[in-house]
Amino acid sequence: MAAITASLSGFPEWLPAGRVVENHVLDTLRREFELHGFASIETRAVEPLKELLRKGETSKEVYLLSRLADLGAEGGEGGTDPNRLGLHFDLTVPFARYVVENAGHLHFPFRRYQIQKVWRGERPQDGRFREFTQADIDVVGDGTLAFHHEVEIPLVMAAALTKLGIGEFAIHVNNRKAAQGAYESLGIRDVEGALRAIDKLAKIGPAGVQAELEALGDVNPAAAQAAIELAGITGTEGISAAARAVVEKAGGVVSELMEQGLAELEELLAAASERAPGVVVADLSVARGLDYYTGSVYETFLVGHESLGSICSGGRYDSLASDGKRTYPGVGMSIGVSRLVSRMLSADLASASRQVPSAVLVAVTDEAERAASDAVAVELRKRAIPCEVSPSAAKFGKQIRHADRRGIPFVWFPGTGEVKDIRSGEQVAADPRTWEPPAQDWWPTVVANG
Amino acid sequence: MAAITASLSGFPEWLPAGRVVENHVLDTLRREFELHGFASIETRAVEPLKELLRKGETSKEVYLLSRLADLGAEGGEGGTDPNRLGLHFDLTVPFARYVVENAGHLHFPFRRYQIQKVWRGERPQDGRFREFTQADIDVVGDGTLAFHHEVEIPLVMAAALTKLGIGEFAIHVNNRKAAQGAYESLGIRDVEGALRAIDKLAKIGPAGVQAELEALGDVNPAAAQAAIELAGITGTEGISAAARAVVEKAGGVVSELMEQGLAELEELLAAASERAPGVVVADLSVARGLDYYTGSVYETFLVGHESLGSICSGGRYDSLASDGKRTYPGVGMSIGVSRLVSRMLSADLASASRQVPSAVLVAVTDEAERAASDAVAVELRKRAIPCEVSPSAAKFGKQIRHADRRGIPFVWFPGTGEVKDIRSGEQVAADPRTWEPPAQDWWPTVVANG
Repeated sequence: MAAITASLSGFPEWLPAGRVVENHVLDTLRREFELHGFASIETRAVEPLKELLRKGETSKEVYLLSRLADLGAEGGEGGTDPNRLGLHFDLTVPFARYVVENAGHLHFPFRRYQIQKVWRGERPQDGRFREFTQADIDVVGDGTLAFHHEVEIPLVMAAALTKLGIGEFAIHVNNRKAAQGAYESLGIRDVEGALRAIDKLAKIGPAGVQAELEALGDVNPAAAQAAIELAGITGTEGISAAARAVVEKAGGVVSELMEQGLAELEELLAAASERAPGVVVADLSVARGLDYYTGSVYETFLVGHESLGSICSGGRYDSLASDGKRTYPGVGMSIGVSRLVSRMLSADLASASRQVPSAVLVAVTDEAERAASDAVAVELRKRAIPCEVSPSAAKFGKQIRHADRRGIPFVWFPGTGEVKDIRSGEQVAADPRTWEPPAQDWWPTVVANG
Repeated sequence: MAAITASLSGFPEWLPAGRVVENHVLDTLRREFELHGFASIETRAVEPLKELLRKGETSKEVYLLSRLADLGAEGGEGGTDPNRLGLHFDLTVPFARYVVENAGHLHFPFRRYQIQKVWRGERPQDGRFREFTQADIDVVGDGTLAFHHEVEIPLVMAAALTKLGIGEFAIHVNNRKAAQGAYESLGIRDVEGALRAIDKLAKIGPAGVQAELEALGDVNPAAAQAAIELAGITGTEGISAAARAVVEKAGGVVSELMEQGLAELEELLAAASERAPGVVVADLSVARGLDYYTGSVYETFLVGHESLGSICSGGRYDSLASDGKRTYPGVGMSIGVSRLVSRMLSADLASASRQVPSAVLVAVTDEAERAASDAVAVELRKRAIPCEVSPSAAKFGKQIRHADRRGIPFVWFPGTGEVKDIRSGEQVAADPRTWEPPAQDWWPTVVANG
């Protein structure tokens, strides 16, 4: 079954069979988030430009809006007027605004999930999606937010990803305090610069990173070397000891901040090894996002599909939002659903048992007898059995082929009161008030091959 | 519980309790559409301007897109370049494109539902929604589409609206062939002009409409009078006879087209009176959309909330889409979900039993004992009981108030292994591996007061 199409570059559309898989993913995530007590919200698709530009780095990717009716009016289309509307490029910026605006109606810590489309005006030649669905969970506090939520969030995502059955995955965690503390312990003052350099390790290699670190100024070769060694620390045990040893070997004195960050990392690893063994690993090379996250930071890789990049990322913000008087710290993670589903389909990690909801096609013996077929369908639907009535009173062979092409497993013959499993050919007498399809045929199912 | 907010005019956002109601509506519609064998699809949010401008009348409401990165580049923001992207303002235009593009992958008649946001750049002072959710069902044929689908579509919507429990509603039906045939029988040549005039009946009254009709030219006073009388015909029986009588009284000869349209209307009424008694009524004043629909046309009114206008409209197109070689006739209806949910909330037609998914708050005796509370939550979730762990090890009274404010009915005490119904105060010993909440408390429910 064909699954995906895109007549406009960057704007993928699923064919019905692909949509069954996408809906399965969305339903599974939603269910798992709700089981963990996250409430659903949606925010409008648009934000004023001034909100969207707060995160400077992504500003180039914003789609701005103009009303067609305003074209040619004075002031043109609005340019970069801060009140001009643009499409949101993530769900964090609008959620932060929603929290500040509605704080009086929310109960903190506020646990929410949000599954929506976002848009990024990427250059079409980059082959990236310009419209895609994200699934976010966040816990937000009013003024304070306990550390245990930094343990909880990746465990909720681990539970959700496990339910998807897409195979083995690993959540890589690091901690801003540990990284910043370590750099400070090594005498590196430009923490953000060091993080940016370390983030390039896979791309430009240790020698390139060493040069970038030394170019920051006041970073001696031993400190740069140690920063690179720190980034090589990964695993579930002995992380703190290894990190301390690297810093001390380079002549550094382990700072209080570094100790605090390492203690948080260890606490997260300990809880995770209990509740989701083998899923969460410390990875001190995770540097992306550490410039705005303030505590734990997470990236998730699908084993065997590392080329996808992180499928689920996030971290802790000490100030997700603020209205000047109150500050709202938060911790959250976001799944890139469209990219994940696209890979699930292209790599055959999942497939749909059929592309239509109907378990039964009710045949029509004669157009004059259509009401009899409608009546059977009404009875079946009363017991939540999805079905449709044949569009024409063609020969039964043709009606059966109609069902077969759609993957509908059963054809009902109202004339003789029989139902046929068109896969096995078995045909039995049946009463529409009592007959049931087998559970696996009731609704379309998604088989995970991961 | 507060339900709705809108810090940007025309862009409503639901608070968590309102979102529970909206999700209930969306889930109910989706379930009912799938029970009737409609497959889910989504289309991208954007279309090239040339696609959006095919329906001339709504062109003023289009939001056009510009990439922020392109601002100031040669050619400005794109003006009315036909390939410039705009946000879709309905789901029919993108669906028609999807059908033509993917016809080779689809099986006809193709039954699909589509629930998505649409955007209209209305003037903010009009107080209309500029972003809202529509829920559409359509059946589309390849070349031909049998009339019985025109009977089926309003019956599916009747089943869906009934499941919402929002109270009594009426689906008003008319037929383009009956209207056009009647006008032709009366010698009125400008059928579209006559339909536009009749559409104003409620607004400008019979005398105003009479004047507009006569102003069309070649419409004599008796014919204009008859057209107004025709628009007064409503009910479930004797429609054809009444319509014929009006035409003949005015000296007209009932045309074949009029007879065909009346026969279709009668067939629809007969099937509907059997399968959804009292829901579908003929209403020959329904004229909106008759300029582009070619057969049955539908509008739906919520009894007692007629001021909302039609909450679910649609009709038959002989050419929903065409690629020049093949033509795809269709019939469908669309529910304006956001406006409906907004009224449900403001008129208290429905309310949520709680604003969070959690049925249970697992208390924390002491921060050092948090793992024991986490373990209880894991056990409950294994049996699909939504729950959350208390964010702090505050005094139990404070933890109970935390649950109470959110509407969480049960608090679990891991220390003593007891669970308390905080509404009744009843507290019993319980095992997290076997305890279940009563069915009505398991998930948030929506009580319909309609």
